[in-house]
Amino acid sequence: MGKIICAGLGPGDPDLISVRADRVIRAARHVAYFRKAGRQGQARRIVEGMLAGGAAEYPMEYPVTTEIPFDSPEYNARLAAFYDDWAARLAALAATDDVVVLCEGDPFFYGSFMHLYVRLKDRVPVEVIPGIPGMAGCWNVTGQPITWGDDVLSVVMGTLPEADLVRHMQGADALVVMKTGRNLPKIRRALAAAGRADQAWLIERGTMPGQRVARLAEVGDADCPYFALVLVHGQGRRPLAAGAGQ
Amino acid sequence: MGKIICAGLGPGDPDLISVRADRVIRAARHVAYFRKAGRQGQARRIVEGMLAGGAAEYPMEYPVTTEIPFDSPEYNARLAAFYDDWAARLAALAATDDVVVLCEGDPFFYGSFMHLYVRLKDRVPVEVIPGIPGMAGCWNVTGQPITWGDDVLSVVMGTLPEADLVRHMQGADALVVMKTGRNLPKIRRALAAAGRADQAWLIERGTMPGQRVARLAEVGDADCPYFALVLVHGQGRRPLAAGAGQ
Ligand SMILES: C[S@@+](CC[C@H](N)C(=O)[O-])C[C@H]1O[C@@H](n2cnc3c(N)ncnc32)[C@H](O)[C@@H]1O
Ligand SMILES: C[S@@+](CC[C@H](N)C(=O)[O-])C[C@H]1O[C@@H](n2cnc3c(N)ncnc32)[C@H](O)[C@@H]1O
Repeated sequence: MGKIICAGLGPGDPDLISVRADRVIRAARHVAYFRKAGRQGQARRIVEGMLAGGAAEYPMEYPVTTEIPFDSPEYNARLAAFYDDWAARLAALAATDDVVVLCEGDPFFYGSFMHLYVRLKDRVPVEVIPGIPGMAGCWNVTGQPITWGDDVLSVVMGTLPEADLVRHMQGADALVVMKTGRNLPKIRRALAAAGRADQAWLIERGTMPGQRVARLAEVGDADCPYFALVLVHGQGRRPLAAGAGQ
Repeated sequence: MGKIICAGLGPGDPDLISVRADRVIRAARHVAYFRKAGRQGQARRIVEGMLAGGAAEYPMEYPVTTEIPFDSPEYNARLAAFYDDWAARLAALAATDDVVVLCEGDPFFYGSFMHLYVRLKDRVPVEVIPGIPGMAGCWNVTGQPITWGDDVLSVVMGTLPEADLVRHMQGADALVVMKTGRNLPKIRRALAAAGRADQAWLIERGTMPGQRVARLAEVGDADCPYFALVLVHGQGRRPLAAGAGQ
């Protein structure tokens, strides 16, 4: 009897994978990962050169991405069927062998694997290896700490309604806004309404080839990268040198 | 000319250190870490057995912890002098050699190293290796994803005033409350006021020897572990199997 092992990959640089996940990935005989149809897939790209010769690969291609509204019954039904199907296929493989599922960042933090996890956990043994969330790789490459002292950090999705974004942006000290893409103009308006626009950074493909780190104010409105997030650093309490002011 | 390398250690299990940090720690000739006076120190314990023979160690002992209120001018002055002093010592070492500073979790996420970082970054080369934040190790060991769909995650410190805690607990879907210790009774009252008390988990020493994972409701009020955090999992949108309801 085998098991399913979901390996968190961290933000993108393979050197930031955990020692345990690195070992599991290199030894894997069956490797599954999500991707958009026709793409190589972010997770697969991160482990390029790490897989053993002869490892079997299972690309799990989303049946739908942004063609159907994500809150429609049809979207829900098609994704549910997709996860049901792959859960059954991976469970069948795990009857005899270990299967490694690759997941960007940390699997339990807004990861697609969670939808397989709830379907699998009572059928086969499942092990999840945490990873550095993408956001931690992103604030690292800005060269500035994200939170100090008693700062409150809120993580919000760019898919939220604008009014909700504004409210959360006003309430927190430090901010992470994920799922940018076509939501970027809305995110920008919400940051402006909350008075946080000029402190905001856009990080695209943080720690990966093609990384971009820019002030959001310097990014044009037509430029809406999908694999990016917006950060506002906290400015909380810290012990300063004598005479430096507070 | 050497440099300062701060290695994020992740939540506690040495197998969750990144490949890069693992390599840097094993090769280090000078290793510095924070600890309370008279203790071994959490960071040092995580790397037990990993340091090279002959590595020089520099325990940086906090001059004060909870004896003086953390918002008093005296606390600020003593900590500022402590960080000034160690920044100078590490910068002197880095004039000729690399120095590795150990930091639990992710260094730029509420880490003490940030206070050295701001003092060092314009004097010597400083490299920071991100790590899995302690909270990600903690939600991993609960065996439940922390955030789904459009969930908002807020991270708050138990040191905040009770009314602020209640407000943030009401505003977010998923919650992480760090710095528990003697703040636990206050955190518990705030969760109850926000209607979140029975969804809360307490994780002590997550991924470390002596780990405890419990429902907060089952933890007594006299039991206030310091190295612990409180989690409330989000319950957001997810594609369910047909007929399973939403
Ligand atoms: C569905 S979430 C997956 C999160 C993942 N499980 C994690 O822990 O980071 C995908 C979003 O994460 C953000 N993201 C993750 N890694 C990133 C990186 N290296 N650079 C920029 N954005 C990243 C982007 O906003 C993207 O839309
Ligand atoms: C000063 S913060 C340091 C955070 C660290 N830089 C990180 O990324 O996790 C220390 C607090 O983190 C929380 N914490 C960190 N790791 C933990 C673990 N493995 N188990 C439980 N709590 C942890 C506790 O609430 C503790 O009071």
